[in-house]
Amino acid sequence: MTPTELQQYLHENIPLSKVMEVAVVSVTEDSVVLTAPLPPNINHQHTVFGGSASAVAILAAWSLVHVHLSLAGISTGIVIQRNSMEYLRPMWGAFTATSHIPAAEDWKRFVRMLERRGIGRIVLPSVLQYEGEIAGAFEGEFVATLDRS
Amino acid sequence: MTPTELQQYLHENIPLSKVMEVAVVSVTEDSVVLTAPLPPNINHQHTVFGGSASAVAILAAWSLVHVHLSLAGISTGIVIQRNSMEYLRPMWGAFTATSHIPAAEDWKRFVRMLERRGIGRIVLPSVLQYEGEIAGAFEGEFVATLDRS
Repeated sequence: MTPTELQQYLHENIPLSKVMEVAVVSVTEDSVVLTAPLPPNINHQHTVFGGSASAVAILAAWSLVHVHLSLAGISTGIVIQRNSMEYLRPMWGAFTATSHIPAAEDWKRFVRMLERRGIGRIVLPSVLQYEGEIAGAFEGEFVATLDRS
Repeated sequence: MTPTELQQYLHENIPLSKVMEVAVVSVTEDSVVLTAPLPPNINHQHTVFGGSASAVAILAAWSLVHVHLSLAGISTGIVIQRNSMEYLRPMWGAFTATSHIPAAEDWKRFVRMLERRGIGRIVLPSVLQYEGEIAGAFEGEFVATLDRS
């Protein structure tokens, strides 16, 4: 899946991602990097609204599960079950959200559970960066359900 | 502060709240209730996008701090420092986010710290409801800084 394909998928299926002007920077073997500009995501203090920061962090982690399961030829529904978010610094401009695959063993266990039981659960991080510095830390638990149709 | 005034404030200062069509249902002594419809907040599964759910929960809790400090005549900057969110049920339509003032003692301690030290910290919940049932549980820590200007 190319960055353009993922971006189109997000914009078409989650219209808020288009309004937030979320763009896909890169999609690699083990990471997804998204970016969003300040203007559509600004708050009363002229920094990035926490709700936007959180939403882009969710999208990065969700996309990582989506891309990797698609690449593995596994068709699923993926939903977020819980998350935590720390807002470490105000962001005064465009920011990125990077989600990495956790330990290979965790990922393998997730796919194995999904294939065996039709349901798998995985915890993924997203890191927000502004001007090269870490500005936020997200962790989300996602549940994927095998599409048997 | 009336619901209309709060809604105008949110839409003008946090433009994403306008795009998400967040409306203020009520503002009382000890709670703020917001609502948002499905269409601008929909995801790939035709339910409310987790990022929207999270953002509206943040707005409800943030608004509660904003409204109550304004009523107390205290001018501050309020930012979110961390939050957790549990997504308990999919929401297939308009939903509400309700934030309540926690124990009176916590609120008094928060205002006292803010007045004495110029900075206060408080943890507030928001509960998401869809068709009368609890669909999500948010908890956020907010920091208010006295505006000395």
